[in-house]
Amino acid sequence: MTRVLLTGFDTFAGEASNPSWEAVRLVAAEPGGTDLEVTAVRLSCVYGIALDELRSAVERVDPDLVVCVGQAGGRPDVTVERIAINVDDARIPDNAGRQPIDVPIVEAGPAAYFAGLPVKACVAAARAAGVPASVSSTAGTFVCNHVFYGLMHLIATERPTTRGGFVHVPFASEQVADRAVASLPLPAIADALRAIVTTAATRTTDISAEGGSTH
Amino acid sequence: MTRVLLTGFDTFAGEASNPSWEAVRLVAAEPGGTDLEVTAVRLSCVYGIALDELRSAVERVDPDLVVCVGQAGGRPDVTVERIAINVDDARIPDNAGRQPIDVPIVEAGPAAYFAGLPVKACVAAARAAGVPASVSSTAGTFVCNHVFYGLMHLIATERPTTRGGFVHVPFASEQVADRAVASLPLPAIADALRAIVTTAATRTTDISAEGGSTH
Amino acid sequence: MTRVLLTGFDTFAGEASNPSWEAVRLVAAEPGGTDLEVTAVRLSCVYGIALDELRSAVERVDPDLVVCVGQAGGRPDVTVERIAINVDDARIPDNAGRQPIDVPIVEAGPAAYFAGLPVKACVAAARAAGVPASVSSTAGTFVCNHVFYGLMHLIATERPTTRGGFVHVPFASEQVADRAVASLPLPAIADALRAIVTTAATRTTDISAEGGSTH
Amino acid sequence: MTRVLLTGFDTFAGEASNPSWEAVRLVAAEPGGTDLEVTAVRLSCVYGIALDELRSAVERVDPDLVVCVGQAGGRPDVTVERIAINVDDARIPDNAGRQPIDVPIVEAGPAAYFAGLPVKACVAAARAAGVPASVSSTAGTFVCNHVFYGLMHLIATERPTTRGGFVHVPFASEQVADRAVASLPLPAIADALRAIVTTAATRTTDISAEGGSTH
Repeated sequence: MTRVLLTGFDTFAGEASNPSWEAVRLVAAEPGGTDLEVTAVRLSCVYGIALDELRSAVERVDPDLVVCVGQAGGRPDVTVERIAINVDDARIPDNAGRQPIDVPIVEAGPAAYFAGLPVKACVAAARAAGVPASVSSTAGTFVCNHVFYGLMHLIATERPTTRGGFVHVPFASEQVADRAVASLPLPAIADALRAIVTTAATRTTDISAEGGSTH
Repeated sequence: MTRVLLTGFDTFAGEASNPSWEAVRLVAAEPGGTDLEVTAVRLSCVYGIALDELRSAVERVDPDLVVCVGQAGGRPDVTVERIAINVDDARIPDNAGRQPIDVPIVEAGPAAYFAGLPVKACVAAARAAGVPASVSSTAGTFVCNHVFYGLMHLIATERPTTRGGFVHVPFASEQVADRAVASLPLPAIADALRAIVTTAATRTTDISAEGGSTH
Repeated sequence: MTRVLLTGFDTFAGEASNPSWEAVRLVAAEPGGTDLEVTAVRLSCVYGIALDELRSAVERVDPDLVVCVGQAGGRPDVTVERIAINVDDARIPDNAGRQPIDVPIVEAGPAAYFAGLPVKACVAAARAAGVPASVSSTAGTFVCNHVFYGLMHLIATERPTTRGGFVHVPFASEQVADRAVASLPLPAIADALRAIVTTAATRTTDISAEGGSTH
Repeated sequence: MTRVLLTGFDTFAGEASNPSWEAVRLVAAEPGGTDLEVTAVRLSCVYGIALDELRSAVERVDPDLVVCVGQAGGRPDVTVERIAINVDDARIPDNAGRQPIDVPIVEAGPAAYFAGLPVKACVAAARAAGVPASVSSTAGTFVCNHVFYGLMHLIATERPTTRGGFVHVPFASEQVADRAVASLPLPAIADALRAIVTTAATRTTDISAEGGSTH
């Protein structure tokens, strides 16, 4: 049995819903893998608060695996993030109106942490489930990257046996029916997350597969 | 009972499948509306031949409504085409290696035909089915526009009581799982087509709704 | 000597300037070709009014060639429009707050007019001047297409010896320095327009060159 | 007097030229700032070799400031990179046919290095020069990031008084005249680099300005 903590986010930036939370709920309700115990938690889209909520959830659930999920509106596919960087730099205010500019997430923390997931294997699993997916080399500098970096720092400093990572999902089709922008239906997004969670729960080494970006 | 002819295309441009044909087959197998008799026909992606095949199908099926469907790889949503223009101008060779440049489809035909579908109502219906959709003001100048113009010319000159139009669909997710490009799953594309066909079969006047493009 | 009427547009949609007008002014000030007499006129971004202004300018200038120019924000290159269609369908209000939906520009006018320029030769000339350019098969359904259709209708019905067409230009770099969106510097846009005007003034037949779009 | 080493890259990926090298040459020929001594060096687009060449150039020039420049085809603006990450992951083979997958650049090196440039001030300077520019949070995982990380590691371990960073430039307009893809003319790219080099040479602290990305 693998205990999995899955997190999604509150809505932000004027959207009516957040596909990260909607999809995470679907996965928790029906995880797919037989040996998975999945707890879904919704995080505030607020610098600082989101990390407090994540830490509480980790203490409560005591997970073997943590996968945080966020919305990357405009990306056409599900992206497994490769690296979290030690900077908050908000292009827009968060849900509490905070807009930090070029502030470290952890004072004197390392510049970055690589994800603790088998990133390429997770991408391959999502694709095998029929859902477009790829590796991303930036989670941005907003609350998503903030949570991702905070998670990896927590693991590095306090929970050496927990593995963790971050996945960005596109807009849900239901959310953008009247906007000409890339999207995937929520069930497809949930399918990708199931494949990723199952893969991350069952393998610790990655596969060797193309997936870099030229820039 | 409305007799509907739905057409999709052969694969082209090196793709392994064509979502227009895959989706059209799904709709023909399960049209959704109770008063629809849907025949699906696959057209060659070849200038001239495609129109011969369309004409034969129209004669055989004697449809009340014809909706031709093609792939618009890269578009993020299902697009209902507004207008067909009287020019073949191939950016790539068709499946027979033909590449006409700036040739009229019908010598001395009108410069363009507007679609015979309630375009805005069709878009609204696809959206109501949860699938992103919008109006398009160009079907390009390849075999899709060729078939669309040929269909409207056939209707204008020989079949005044038939209504017809053209719908472009994005890549199917299954087709581009390893490419970071916009897509929708085939079932979602089929849902959109069902909503469009049902709408086009049951109403002849359009709704007034925003849907233009600034350029 | 060829008398040329070049038009640009007022700013719209909240932009601080309109590169179509800025570039047209540069070309009128320095046309490049020795046998060109270029008059630049700025049109209102208002349905109806823009066409009244265009007609007045045509009567005043009595041009051999009319090239109307508009902004296509987001397009990466200079596009020579192939066809104007007989519909006003505003996605946003014009500068007078008008937002027509699916209204013909000319009641009982033809569905479309092809441009009266050697479109492919114009594209080749802009490229030869070092500026990215391509053919476009849609000028949209906003005031740009409105003016383009109105111009071609005026020529078709009243001025058989005048030639005319429409060119869309990208954002000027100066206009979007702080937005990550495609642009070209104004001098490059003006260079492209000079090449296009010179070409349109000196040749009436087009070249045969690839330039279609698959959709 | 500030000694500046500017590097560009060889052509790659089938392109006929590389705007990074073309622009860097223009800047070295005419640096703009009166107190700058700029040396331009062209690096091979080959993992490992490029870093050997960079190290040689640094030893020869003994620069106060190193700005490496690469092509980011498809980006619409000049981007100042924020961070270099410790991984080679090639999507395509480099110019020597090498295609490393998920290999650290420096065994046991830190996960990432932040740029040693005042990134936001550099972006503001390029914009003030009329050239669209923004911050980027990923330099990819190809030879550009390889050189960027190698440079920052060299500085961190051996040259504490040298400052360094990386700038990605879009396609040059001359390079893509017949492709509908974002570009800027070479002189505009060179103008942006001049503004960036002058800024980086004259200030060590950054400004506080928006420039993050939500994902």
